[in-house]
Amino acid sequence: MEFTVEQIAQLLGGRIQGDATTKISKLAKIQEGDGKSLAFLSNPKYENYIYTTEAGAVIVKNDFIPKSAVKATLIFVEDPYTCFTALLEQYHKTMLWSRQGVEEPCYIGATSSIGENHYRAAFSYIGNHCTLGTNVKIFPHVTIGDNVSIGNNVIIYAGVKICADTVIGNHVTIQAGAVIGSDGFGFAPQADGTYKTIPQVGNVIIGNHVDIGANTVIDRATMGSTVIEDGVKLDNLIQVAHNVKIGQNTVIASQAGVSGSTEIGKQCIIGGQVGFSGHIKIADRTSIGAQAGIMSSVTTEGEKLIGSPALDARSYFKSYTIFRKLPAVMKTIEDLEKKIISLSSEVK
Amino acid sequence: MEFTVEQIAQLLGGRIQGDATTKISKLAKIQEGDGKSLAFLSNPKYENYIYTTEAGAVIVKNDFIPKSAVKATLIFVEDPYTCFTALLEQYHKTMLWSRQGVEEPCYIGATSSIGENHYRAAFSYIGNHCTLGTNVKIFPHVTIGDNVSIGNNVIIYAGVKICADTVIGNHVTIQAGAVIGSDGFGFAPQADGTYKTIPQVGNVIIGNHVDIGANTVIDRATMGSTVIEDGVKLDNLIQVAHNVKIGQNTVIASQAGVSGSTEIGKQCIIGGQVGFSGHIKIADRTSIGAQAGIMSSVTTEGEKLIGSPALDARSYFKSYTIFRKLPAVMKTIEDLEKKIISLSSEVK
Amino acid sequence: MEFTVEQIAQLLGGRIQGDATTKISKLAKIQEGDGKSLAFLSNPKYENYIYTTEAGAVIVKNDFIPKSAVKATLIFVEDPYTCFTALLEQYHKTMLWSRQGVEEPCYIGATSSIGENHYRAAFSYIGNHCTLGTNVKIFPHVTIGDNVSIGNNVIIYAGVKICADTVIGNHVTIQAGAVIGSDGFGFAPQADGTYKTIPQVGNVIIGNHVDIGANTVIDRATMGSTVIEDGVKLDNLIQVAHNVKIGQNTVIASQAGVSGSTEIGKQCIIGGQVGFSGHIKIADRTSIGAQAGIMSSVTTEGEKLIGSPALDARSYFKSYTIFRKLPAVMKTIEDLEKKIISLSSEVK
Repeated sequence: MEFTVEQIAQLLGGRIQGDATTKISKLAKIQEGDGKSLAFLSNPKYENYIYTTEAGAVIVKNDFIPKSAVKATLIFVEDPYTCFTALLEQYHKTMLWSRQGVEEPCYIGATSSIGENHYRAAFSYIGNHCTLGTNVKIFPHVTIGDNVSIGNNVIIYAGVKICADTVIGNHVTIQAGAVIGSDGFGFAPQADGTYKTIPQVGNVIIGNHVDIGANTVIDRATMGSTVIEDGVKLDNLIQVAHNVKIGQNTVIASQAGVSGSTEIGKQCIIGGQVGFSGHIKIADRTSIGAQAGIMSSVTTEGEKLIGSPALDARSYFKSYTIFRKLPAVMKTIEDLEKKIISLSSEVK
Repeated sequence: MEFTVEQIAQLLGGRIQGDATTKISKLAKIQEGDGKSLAFLSNPKYENYIYTTEAGAVIVKNDFIPKSAVKATLIFVEDPYTCFTALLEQYHKTMLWSRQGVEEPCYIGATSSIGENHYRAAFSYIGNHCTLGTNVKIFPHVTIGDNVSIGNNVIIYAGVKICADTVIGNHVTIQAGAVIGSDGFGFAPQADGTYKTIPQVGNVIIGNHVDIGANTVIDRATMGSTVIEDGVKLDNLIQVAHNVKIGQNTVIASQAGVSGSTEIGKQCIIGGQVGFSGHIKIADRTSIGAQAGIMSSVTTEGEKLIGSPALDARSYFKSYTIFRKLPAVMKTIEDLEKKIISLSSEVK
Repeated sequence: MEFTVEQIAQLLGGRIQGDATTKISKLAKIQEGDGKSLAFLSNPKYENYIYTTEAGAVIVKNDFIPKSAVKATLIFVEDPYTCFTALLEQYHKTMLWSRQGVEEPCYIGATSSIGENHYRAAFSYIGNHCTLGTNVKIFPHVTIGDNVSIGNNVIIYAGVKICADTVIGNHVTIQAGAVIGSDGFGFAPQADGTYKTIPQVGNVIIGNHVDIGANTVIDRATMGSTVIEDGVKLDNLIQVAHNVKIGQNTVIASQAGVSGSTEIGKQCIIGGQVGFSGHIKIADRTSIGAQAGIMSSVTTEGEKLIGSPALDARSYFKSYTIFRKLPAVMKTIEDLEKKIISLSSEVK
């Protein structure tokens, strides 16, 4: 895409100095651009660059006065950095959502449908009886199994596996390599020491505005549904077991794991590498520090927990501070013992 | 697939009331079905639904007596819930194993062979010199490298990567995204601070009745084999390093990691996020709690361990109970110190 | 490939006894070979096999004197084991790098280029504006996004996802299922409890001689670059968040996680399942034990840390030794209390 400096200045509400017809097609740092680039100057310590930059245009502060000749067209605004990042975000979003059309070969079952403005990359696979909404972007090597339902404005990056029967809402982004709807880990011990597989016939339901990280795994329910509610953000390499429920707007950092049938409330903030036992409930607005181990339900809202097994954060750090000093504490105890022995002998 | 109510009743040993020729093609909840659905009524609190249900047939208890007209055909059995879940499991299994044929495009090396009743999805890849048994189901985006041997009745879900030289037994299921046979992590430190890659020329051998979770990784051996014995169940996102051996019927929960050359015995139960050091041996029937760190061999069978570094579970919890009270313990010690000082002065 | 025993003996500087024209095409254990196999005898306890082996040739020690007839051609060398493993490594390397050509169907954008001696497997995908060097081997189901730059002598195993804008150096190996350049985990909390996605417009830069493990994830930077310097070795299932920097020749074991904007120095050795907080700096040559939690910067080079939160290793183990004895320590304290009470009464 190409814009004139005039169009950009209009968008930013900026004043132009120089050639308003200069054509811009990309964003760059001031020290790296070429004639088609738009750069910005915010920090005065980079001012030198503006006199040598190859960029076609530079966004500068309203009060900027060049000390010598400037080749680039200038756009004067109140806050160049904010204007530039806003353009960058807009550009990024536009590029992403403008991806459209079908690359061959790709596969879609005869009984499946997909809405307008979709992108289906080469080697993407959609099974049968699937319904996909408008503005769905499917990258290479995505597998979508049978009976999957997907809403509108959904981005599914390369190599994501969405297994049969999964239901996904609107405005969802799934990063590369994530697996949604794999079989839950259910095995019944037999008398001879072997395990019998318990069929996993449930599914996964994902709400709206959910983000799912790369190589994260969400298992289908044994029966019923594993549920990820609206606004949940899951980082990379997270494990969500069968029949788990994660409440609205809860954020979970990388490599955390949630065991089967556990329910996490709304607006929780969970650190990286945290582990949850199965069949417990976590109250809304719980904060859990990285690497904590949550072995029992959390019933009071708004608690902060840390440690394994987890305690409330202040108690944990108090105890841990003493843990660090345990060798000195032992010394104190031994001294006390000696003193008592000596006292005893004195008394007797 | 379609069955008459008569056929289903015969299978369940049930008695029919209503139209025995009603055709059934799916299973549903009593409040959700349509004319082709079979539902069940077990919990009396759902009885109301039976008078309004659209389901074609409903499984009910032998002693159920309708209080008003029922449109659905009824099948009377001893235990409706058990009958229904048995049908559900059977249905699920049938659907899964009935998948057959080859979707195009898919790739198989000219020197490889695959047995009867196989399913090869579009975009599945099988290299050269591979031998696959009967009833093997290969989902989209599966890569099977050269010289791989796979038994009968094996399901390989979407995006699984089975690297060259891997050997897999019968009745094995591998969930989406798992990697079997990646290079082990072996690097020799050099004098200049760099590391030289140690070639990983071994393979992975997987026994019968093994289940492997989504995005789990099993590295090939440096030389020889990484071995997963019969009946082992591995959950999602597990790391199994080079030259590891996992004994029969051992179950490992999500995100656990086993370092190189460690041998885990039979019938062990390993919790989530557990870590094992390399080159150690774990006795049969060891139980290890979530997040434990196993730094040395376990020689006695049947131990229960927890903590990092791990202790036997009872000792760990006893110590941890005191850890929680350390601030109070410190107070006690300080009090003792004061008392001794005061005693000392009294004595002198 | 096929070699005569004469060629092999020449390579190893060995002396031949028997038929020097014997043709060899593979390497095998002495008890398993056939006429085309080369085996070795190093440990005298396997000597019996040499009289019955089917191998076409066997490497033996200079001082080996057969006790009876040997069918195989013998190659006498100083150290048979070292010679054999050298051949094995050479063979493995040759096989790997000799993979060449294009399997169909595969996909490459019209604006992308790839150098000589490349291998592109069926179902591999390369987007637009990509530049790949010579001797690049791309396995099945690899996705390479737009604007990716890759150097020479790079192996990308099955199902790897390299997202747009990534830059990769020379002599890099990426194991199956790894994800490079997924969006960083950045969300701005809103007043209504929801989170707004922060666009991730940076990239990932990977140096030379880097190895990346299976299913490991490296997120792109929010702005700027996530940087993996020369010689870094990452094991499987590792999380590297946005804007992280990992210094030269640092080695990180499986399932470790590095939070956003953290900088790890050079020549560090990081154990499995270690977690790093965000926005901290780790000095060069730091050693960190498995499962440690690093919550603050490490400023002194060469420290050894363990525990969560981490302490220096010696202090941690001293404290942990007392942690294990805490029940006994409590007993001691209670005894002291009793003695003091009894002393007090005696004094008064």
